[in-house]
Amino acid sequence: MKRYELDAIKASLDLDLVERMLVEGFKAYSAGQVQVPPVQTFQFPRANGDCCIKSAYLEGSEVFVVKLSSGFYDNPGRGLPSNDGLMLVLSATTGQPLALLSDRGWLTSVRTALAGRIVARQLAPREVRAIGIVGTGSQARLQLEYLMPVTDCREVLVWGRGEAQREDYRTFAEGLGFRVRTVADPRAVAQEANLIVTATPSREPLLRSEWVRPGTHITAVGADCAGKQELEPALVARADRIIVDSVSQCSAYGEVCHALGAGLLEPSRLQALGALLAGQGEARGDEDEITLADLTGVAVQDAQIGYCAYMALRQ
Amino acid sequence: MKRYELDAIKASLDLDLVERMLVEGFKAYSAGQVQVPPVQTFQFPRANGDCCIKSAYLEGSEVFVVKLSSGFYDNPGRGLPSNDGLMLVLSATTGQPLALLSDRGWLTSVRTALAGRIVARQLAPREVRAIGIVGTGSQARLQLEYLMPVTDCREVLVWGRGEAQREDYRTFAEGLGFRVRTVADPRAVAQEANLIVTATPSREPLLRSEWVRPGTHITAVGADCAGKQELEPALVARADRIIVDSVSQCSAYGEVCHALGAGLLEPSRLQALGALLAGQGEARGDEDEITLADLTGVAVQDAQIGYCAYMALRQ
Repeated sequence: MKRYELDAIKASLDLDLVERMLVEGFKAYSAGQVQVPPVQTFQFPRANGDCCIKSAYLEGSEVFVVKLSSGFYDNPGRGLPSNDGLMLVLSATTGQPLALLSDRGWLTSVRTALAGRIVARQLAPREVRAIGIVGTGSQARLQLEYLMPVTDCREVLVWGRGEAQREDYRTFAEGLGFRVRTVADPRAVAQEANLIVTATPSREPLLRSEWVRPGTHITAVGADCAGKQELEPALVARADRIIVDSVSQCSAYGEVCHALGAGLLEPSRLQALGALLAGQGEARGDEDEITLADLTGVAVQDAQIGYCAYMALRQ
Repeated sequence: MKRYELDAIKASLDLDLVERMLVEGFKAYSAGQVQVPPVQTFQFPRANGDCCIKSAYLEGSEVFVVKLSSGFYDNPGRGLPSNDGLMLVLSATTGQPLALLSDRGWLTSVRTALAGRIVARQLAPREVRAIGIVGTGSQARLQLEYLMPVTDCREVLVWGRGEAQREDYRTFAEGLGFRVRTVADPRAVAQEANLIVTATPSREPLLRSEWVRPGTHITAVGADCAGKQELEPALVARADRIIVDSVSQCSAYGEVCHALGAGLLEPSRLQALGALLAGQGEARGDEDEITLADLTGVAVQDAQIGYCAYMALRQ
């Protein structure tokens, strides 16, 4: 088994290939062709940390992937990053470990942001007036960057909690070629942008239904475990079309779980992303529709991006 | 994170320390002080293989451990071993991966055989007439070797399916200083030995109740997943004392599950090994009792032996 460090992984990864393989992965997952054992999670309350282990095997693939990702939120005080992670790529023919990808969680960030791109290709309004980004962290950055091939729009409104973070984001987005407006109230994002991504660790709604205009698409990626929430449940219920990366995960702890729990949403309204990609059901129809994608992150994404990274590195 | 190969792991492991830590691990597990997320399993029917991922964290330990073990049964035709495995040792304080133990499954064999020793210290008859080993594979060998500090008896009866395997086992056991009798019928093992270990991948009973004499202890380690069985359910039901490494695992797929399923055994008769080790309940009482230990292997054993190996190697 070879071990690869982050620099080598970054240098070799082909994002277009990853995107295509993620599409295939989502389709296979929705079609029941992926072995996804239960997620393993650990809580370390004394260390303010957690760890989860996600594994998946797409039937017919030559490999399967086991991913560890951890968040230890007191680490910065020790000079260590809060988040860490690695992937093991193993042969589905012999069981042998083939590669240890010491990606420090980067591949997870990439597959999450590419899922945002995949969804936007299906559901973004034909004319994007402005992109709205709720959040200023690394995922909020990657989401904007990865939307660039989907739209010519180079206007972005950004909300973040702190002035300093907003200005850092401005520098980042201007570097990509965007005209940037930072706002201190998420209302402005909802009122002016019609392609919105929420990417925060929020535990309370940031966007309210009354602020959102017809014809808007929202991708929510923050709610990836119990307790997290970025959208008002009424906004979720109001959406004309609701796409989820995993019906079971999103119902349990994704953005839609709050609206389901409040009885505002029929479970039958959830449409699996993989089914949409496989051509079952329409993408955006009427330009006045509000569409929502709830992305919790599924292990098949890890399996596919891990496989891509391995294929590129072994050459 | 450092990577350690099997030779270095073998050279540094302190078996007595591992045994003590396994005892502590079993106690903590029975006391509910171990985080043990659900086992992840994969099936690869086209490759005749499987893989499982077991993880555990003993509350208060400085590390947690994720273990992968695989069995790909067509591997020998490719010149590869059927079984492979590795452990990841991670910090419970920062989440950082500390060590990759490329032990190829050896640590699993050791912790399994040491559990046999731990049980025998509690339940072996005071006078061992002969040790009986059902099976001739690597676990059947390690079990015999690890029983040596528990008893002065150096008589062993061995059953295995093939003449060649039996003779190989004879050479091995004579090398340890045993007088060896190989038998072609497991009946002879049951009739003459009173400290018996079954360590086969059998899927049907090998030992029948009517063959077993009062005062015998049997440790069954073969049934570690659904479908495996080494003992007649009537023998399990007849045992005066039944110790299990995990009530939930043994009830689901261990040796006792067949007797439970047949309605021959009350679930209340199962006693957790950790509780026994913690002094709750007696060890062997009457010398005429038949005692049985059903060992399916629990992730806390992996966590403890992985931690031991890491401590020895980092010095």
